[in-house]
This record gives sequence, C-alpha cells and structure tokens, in this order.
Amino acid sequence: MTDSIFSKIIRGEIDSHKIYEDDFVIAILDIGPLSEGHALVIPKEPAVTIDELSDEHAAAVGRVLPRITRAIKKVTGATAINILQNNGSDAGQVVEHVHFHIIPRFKDRGENVQGSPSFKNGPGLELNWNPGTLTPEEALELGKHIKRLL
Amino acid sequence: MTDSIFSKIIRGEIDSHKIYEDDFVIAILDIGPLSEGHALVIPKEPAVTIDELSDEHAAAVGRVLPRITRAIKKVTGATAINILQNNGSDAGQVVEHVHFHIIPRFKDRGENVQGSPSFKNGPGLELNWNPGTLTPEEALELGKHIKRLL
Repeated sequence: MTDSIFSKIIRGEIDSHKIYEDDFVIAILDIGPLSEGHALVIPKEPAVTIDELSDEHAAAVGRVLPRITRAIKKVTGATAINILQNNGSDAGQVVEHVHFHIIPRFKDRGENVQGSPSFKNGPGLELNWNPGTLTPEEALELGKHIKRLL
Repeated sequence: MTDSIFSKIIRGEIDSHKIYEDDFVIAILDIGPLSEGHALVIPKEPAVTIDELSDEHAAAVGRVLPRITRAIKKVTGATAINILQNNGSDAGQVVEHVHFHIIPRFKDRGENVQGSPSFKNGPGLELNWNPGTLTPEEALELGKHIKRLL
C-alpha cells in the first residue's frame, strides 16, 4: 500500500482546500482543475483502486456524490457534470488512492455538439466516445461469466 | 420525469443483458460498448441526474461498484477501469436516467502514454486531460461558497 498524497491530506499532514468531511469521506478542490469547481471525493480507506474498496466505504462515497454535486452546480452555475473515477495507469490514474472527480461543464465556455460521438466542453476534459457493438451471442457468453462472480 | 429506456428495462418491459440486480440497483451490459465488458450500473430510482438522486439510492449504487468492477476485471482481464457518470447533455448524457459506466481498459489493445496529459487506450474511450490552475485565493473564495451549502 502506497502512502499517497491523499493519505497525507486525510491525516492533515498536507494542506488542502477541503470542502467536505465525514467519518468515511473527504472532499477537496482539485488544484489542477479541468474546470471551475473541479473537486475530488476521496474515501478515507486507503484502497488504491475501487475494486479494493470495502462495500461500506464505497457506499459512503456514493451517498455524498449527490449533495456535493448539488453544491458545486449551484455555486458555479455549471450546466452539466461529469463524475469520473480512474483505476490503474492504463485508465489515467495518477494518485494511487481511490478518488472520484466531480467535473463541472459549462455550455457557454466551449463547444458542445449534441448527438455527436465526440464532444468537447471547455478546455479541460475532452471525451471521445466511439462505441462498438455487442452481439446477443457475445452478451450471453460475457454475461454468464460475470454473473457467476456476482 | 422522462420515462427512459432504463425505466423500461428496470420494469422488465424491454430485454437487457442483466448481470446484477438488488432492491435498489440493476446492472446491465452496454449494447454500444466502448470496450469488452462495458457495463452500466443504474439506480432504480427514476432520477435524471445524480444531483436529483436520494442519498439512499446513491449509497446503494456506490456499494456495488467495487464488486461489479471486480467481476468484470476478472472475466475480461482488463488492466484498468474507468468509471464515468455523465449528467446533462453538456456532459455527454444521452439516456435521461442516472447511470454509471464501468469501462474496462486494456494495455495491450491500444496505445497508452503514461505521464502524458492525453491518453488513449483502445478505440472506445479517449480522455484528453488538460488541467488549469487554482490559486489559493480562488480556492478560498470557491471553497467558502461550496462549504456553505454542505
């Protein structure tokens, strides 16, 4: 288990722009924001990726996402919000401690092409979405194996 | 409140590739997958965006994310996972019912440049990450307003 910068923030050893805290969760402003109001919701449990997180801490993070999102939306006037949680360097994770990004988006601060597979809104985060297909046969086979583990 | 395709799936009026269900949550395979194993975790509560979701349903979604992610990782051999939840058309939301994407990523199926602000991994989802800065003064001002609402 790596002692990440977030562990140090949770223990109060490093300063942060804290906006919320309870027994399980801390939320801070991201100092490299993708847009105004970009915040991080971080479980206090020191799991690196979400698959290592306990049900209890995962539930606690989920529980606060609506209220923190509401507050950020209200204060910034964001027209939309992406919540993004990256696990592993191949998914873009940098700090090795589970964290959820709350990323406000603003229609009037960037282009946005509805109905396009690619959309961009402001300079911060660009998502390019290029879906494939799933045949009924593939779904049956894949679903069978996943369900066996759930 | 729009009666979305997910409401119909939850009520069993439309077929889906269901992989998990409990009292609060359903999970299905995405039929327009960004990668192998792309799944959707959907609260049964008919909220359009996460800021409208109740604490209870939000906690229930959070609680199952680790276990569903574990199962998908194990079955697909994904080397990383993005969890993405889009709220509002300016954030790329298409179906008007809260849903969390679980998007597996595979190192050997696409390029991945660690340490680069831009990374791409397979053809499905490309995230371009271009962070700005947050001054202590901006953080103080923004944090003050958000905290007042929390």
